[in-house]
Amino acid sequence: MSKAIGHTCWAIPEGYIPAYSTGPEPQFLSHETACILNTSDQDAHVEITIYFSDREPIGPYQVTVPARRTKHLRFNDITDPEPIPLDTDYASVFNSDVPIIVQHTRLDSRQAENALLSTIAYPSSNS
Amino acid sequence: MSKAIGHTCWAIPEGYIPAYSTGPEPQFLSHETACILNTSDQDAHVEITIYFSDREPIGPYQVTVPARRTKHLRFNDITDPEPIPLDTDYASVFNSDVPIIVQHTRLDSRQAENALLSTIAYPSSNS
Amino acid sequence: MSKAIGHTCWAIPEGYIPAYSTGPEPQFLSHETACILNTSDQDAHVEITIYFSDREPIGPYQVTVPARRTKHLRFNDITDPEPIPLDTDYASVFNSDVPIIVQHTRLDSRQAENALLSTIAYPSSNS
Amino acid sequence: MSKAIGHTCWAIPEGYIPAYSTGPEPQFLSHETACILNTSDQDAHVEITIYFSDREPIGPYQVTVPARRTKHLRFNDITDPEPIPLDTDYASVFNSDVPIIVQHTRLDSRQAENALLSTIAYPSSNS
Repeated sequence: MSKAIGHTCWAIPEGYIPAYSTGPEPQFLSHETACILNTSDQDAHVEITIYFSDREPIGPYQVTVPARRTKHLRFNDITDPEPIPLDTDYASVFNSDVPIIVQHTRLDSRQAENALLSTIAYPSSNS
Repeated sequence: MSKAIGHTCWAIPEGYIPAYSTGPEPQFLSHETACILNTSDQDAHVEITIYFSDREPIGPYQVTVPARRTKHLRFNDITDPEPIPLDTDYASVFNSDVPIIVQHTRLDSRQAENALLSTIAYPSSNS
Repeated sequence: MSKAIGHTCWAIPEGYIPAYSTGPEPQFLSHETACILNTSDQDAHVEITIYFSDREPIGPYQVTVPARRTKHLRFNDITDPEPIPLDTDYASVFNSDVPIIVQHTRLDSRQAENALLSTIAYPSSNS
Repeated sequence: MSKAIGHTCWAIPEGYIPAYSTGPEPQFLSHETACILNTSDQDAHVEITIYFSDREPIGPYQVTVPARRTKHLRFNDITDPEPIPLDTDYASVFNSDVPIIVQHTRLDSRQAENALLSTIAYPSSNS
């Protein structure tokens, strides 16, 4: 029932965490999310590198997605080696030891009404 | 006129059904949808598995998309083997006996104004 | 400068034209759009088939995208062989004689504030 | 740590810059963005061609994305050989000398509340 589907390298060129929010937390906190799905029977050890427009990339951030689990990772929540600065353009690359699938979603609640965006990330074959 | 196009395995890492809605139902009920298209001349028997962050996957949910039809499936509406809990992160995988195409859409009507997201799901080649 | 890029067959499983709108027309008329890009040096003759949940598909609708042009086609505007009904789930398949690229966008203006969604359509290799 | 991932040719069929905005600039200025990620160790020299519905394409616009950097390019900001007209349908094609990844995002702030859309662009293999 649990075949490994997906790729081991993914990229999300768009990244931006708004500097403020409106509405009850945590559901309406402005957030940028990478939804990761691991359908395999092995834990996925994922390394995330963050790219910027004007400085060297930072990382890797280490995340484990257990076997047969999904993890909806908020970029707001990863802090080691350092938090991602707010109101700053960034991009991200995911490398995993088992195939995973990555989808990018943003909830922007800076105004009274939320806005949403989502896309399947870019799966790379030359990892 | 009806060639089978698509893949037999699809994944949607992002899944979340808001716990409440604003506005007239059923059009403005908050919903998470998988739009499935079967262009072939055979009925598609689709099995859906739901993944969570903290428990084993559940399923399969069974859905039939008739030949030359589309089905816009609301995750709110599938209840066998059990309803998908609200306000909970999940992910989904679709396996079909004929090629299909899957697109993921959410209407979030928790606030006065709706928000929308959509993406073609991830088609897997190693099903 | 004008290489033909893209595929000759595309699918959009999600389709839905809201039954009403709010705001000045034509910019804020609720609409469902297929943005088609033809980078080649030949006109693209595109045939669109519309699929439903409960009846046989209709079509083909005929659209020409001239060489080195884009056409942002509103599904509201295609009427031959028949208009697409409002407030009805549908899906669409595009077949072209030269490679094109297709992106799906919806502007939903049923409420005071607009909602937007967009995704690159599904490119098929077995056309 | 910096492998080149991506493709050297990308297309975005949907393009539209709203003619006006609501809210504080520059964050809430209506904008259409191409987020470009260059994970390689060489600068990426990117040439952008803009396609229209009723005139010949213009370009190339020249953009450099330095090694190991992301650039969130606003179409509002590219002016050579000429600014992209507002309230006009267009499409874009990106050609790069090293592999890149491109994601398309729009913030529409014509009304009191923003709307967002995003999708990974279409990667072409026959560049």
